[in-house]
Amino acid sequence: MDLKTYLKQKKSAIDAYLDGVLPPADAMPESLHRSIRYSVEAGGKRVRPVLAIAAAEAVAGTDANVPGLMAVASSLELIHTYSLIHDDLPAMDDDDFRRGKPTNHKVFGESVAILAGDALLTYAFDLLSNPEHIGGVKPKALVSIIREVAVASGNMGMVGGQVVDIESEGKDVDFVTLQYIHAHKTGALIRASVRVGAMAAGASPRQLKALTRYGVDIGLAFQIADDILDIEGTQEEIGKDVGSDIARGKKTYPAFMGLEESKLRAAELVDSAVDALSIFGPSADPLRGIAKYIVSRKN
Amino acid sequence: MDLKTYLKQKKSAIDAYLDGVLPPADAMPESLHRSIRYSVEAGGKRVRPVLAIAAAEAVAGTDANVPGLMAVASSLELIHTYSLIHDDLPAMDDDDFRRGKPTNHKVFGESVAILAGDALLTYAFDLLSNPEHIGGVKPKALVSIIREVAVASGNMGMVGGQVVDIESEGKDVDFVTLQYIHAHKTGALIRASVRVGAMAAGASPRQLKALTRYGVDIGLAFQIADDILDIEGTQEEIGKDVGSDIARGKKTYPAFMGLEESKLRAAELVDSAVDALSIFGPSADPLRGIAKYIVSRKN
Repeated sequence: MDLKTYLKQKKSAIDAYLDGVLPPADAMPESLHRSIRYSVEAGGKRVRPVLAIAAAEAVAGTDANVPGLMAVASSLELIHTYSLIHDDLPAMDDDDFRRGKPTNHKVFGESVAILAGDALLTYAFDLLSNPEHIGGVKPKALVSIIREVAVASGNMGMVGGQVVDIESEGKDVDFVTLQYIHAHKTGALIRASVRVGAMAAGASPRQLKALTRYGVDIGLAFQIADDILDIEGTQEEIGKDVGSDIARGKKTYPAFMGLEESKLRAAELVDSAVDALSIFGPSADPLRGIAKYIVSRKN
Repeated sequence: MDLKTYLKQKKSAIDAYLDGVLPPADAMPESLHRSIRYSVEAGGKRVRPVLAIAAAEAVAGTDANVPGLMAVASSLELIHTYSLIHDDLPAMDDDDFRRGKPTNHKVFGESVAILAGDALLTYAFDLLSNPEHIGGVKPKALVSIIREVAVASGNMGMVGGQVVDIESEGKDVDFVTLQYIHAHKTGALIRASVRVGAMAAGASPRQLKALTRYGVDIGLAFQIADDILDIEGTQEEIGKDVGSDIARGKKTYPAFMGLEESKLRAAELVDSAVDALSIFGPSADPLRGIAKYIVSRKN
């Protein structure tokens, strides 16, 4: 299995799917829909949808046609994109650039950016309950998937992590707080991405348990790798200012345990994630490859 | 039927239910949960949940125990509350007071206010998919209810209306635009409130059609009454600055057709709403009463 080709193919499929399900840019109100498409189409690696699809393939087989999977997977990208738009706002991280392009509020203004985020979050649940797109998923499983996404994104998940992150800025936070931020702000949705893909594919409790461990491990590895990239990456590679975490006084893994120890910890997590997949055959190879890719990526 | 007692009892039941399902104010992160409770507990008439309950009673009978109804009804209040928090933000309407109290961002700061809104919106879908609270609703009906709420709240509903409202400020908008704003910013969620209550109670297509007409009519009547109150109410009654719509150049119904004609139009809509209920017996009396109350209320 060539991971690069796999990731490229899945990203293309997700991009095409998102293009098909999002309202056209000239739908009324036009500023809202242009703003939504601006951020969704700004790119990104579609990590969360790819994880959902790869988890579904691990369960149902590489060529299995899992009903509703694209809708489930794409809803995660809508939520991720909303969180980026709101994170970048002046009242939050106040970032002018994202993925090398001006942030949403720099282009569309603060009010439309806030509302575009609100609309994307809402649209995720619209998509997840749209019979045109999730027809074929058993309603009971679908309700569980919706709940998984809501809990991971909300006050006890992503939003909770973002609150603690914002409030920790410039403060001398302890390691427990840093772990809370990582586990909630990014970890919860990554874990959910793996889980909802598996749930859509009808995973057994044993499979779901294994994939949950995988999701937790790579979620944290992903965040540690991000912290490392903030120090080692070039601006071109990561699309934002290098060292911006440090500049704004954000605590990171390397700040607590040093760069080398952080790299070691990330590698351990990847091993643990791959180990969790031992109950799966070759259908889990993409998940295995993604785990390794996460710590070796350059952006 | 004494409407005042009915509204009071339902409001108490909804307040108690919300208190029970919202995380405690000291749950981590504390600022987020205090902020959420601050706005949810700021009061309000709980119009949307009451409409959902009254619609369910019209369908299933006054004393019927409709499973999941409180969760469905309360999710609407969570969404309404999030929309108020975001509407009040400096980048939006920039309001300092809401229901006679300082607005959320005045107390908790802009970043927490944005995130509290995000969390409330997400929590609505968490609640709607929580087996502890919606157990007993058939999963297929539940997915339809979730979709109804998502569509009414999103880009083609409430958020869409808010975008056009914000962009119309200070502009010479036409009547068609005003109607768009009313139908989307407030109308869509009110219509959905009536519909999801009916759906939870297992309404027939004929019943749902009648209740939908009722919901559309009172949604618009409610907004026209709001426009009239902005002119005629006292600050004490409406809890915000009198004439604030006019002061910020917002177009209203009275601005287009005059005060008397607006009152007439609101009364016609109430008649039409009550007329739509003719297929129901006394179990729809609360809905009939609410329709009349909407245009006679003083806040």
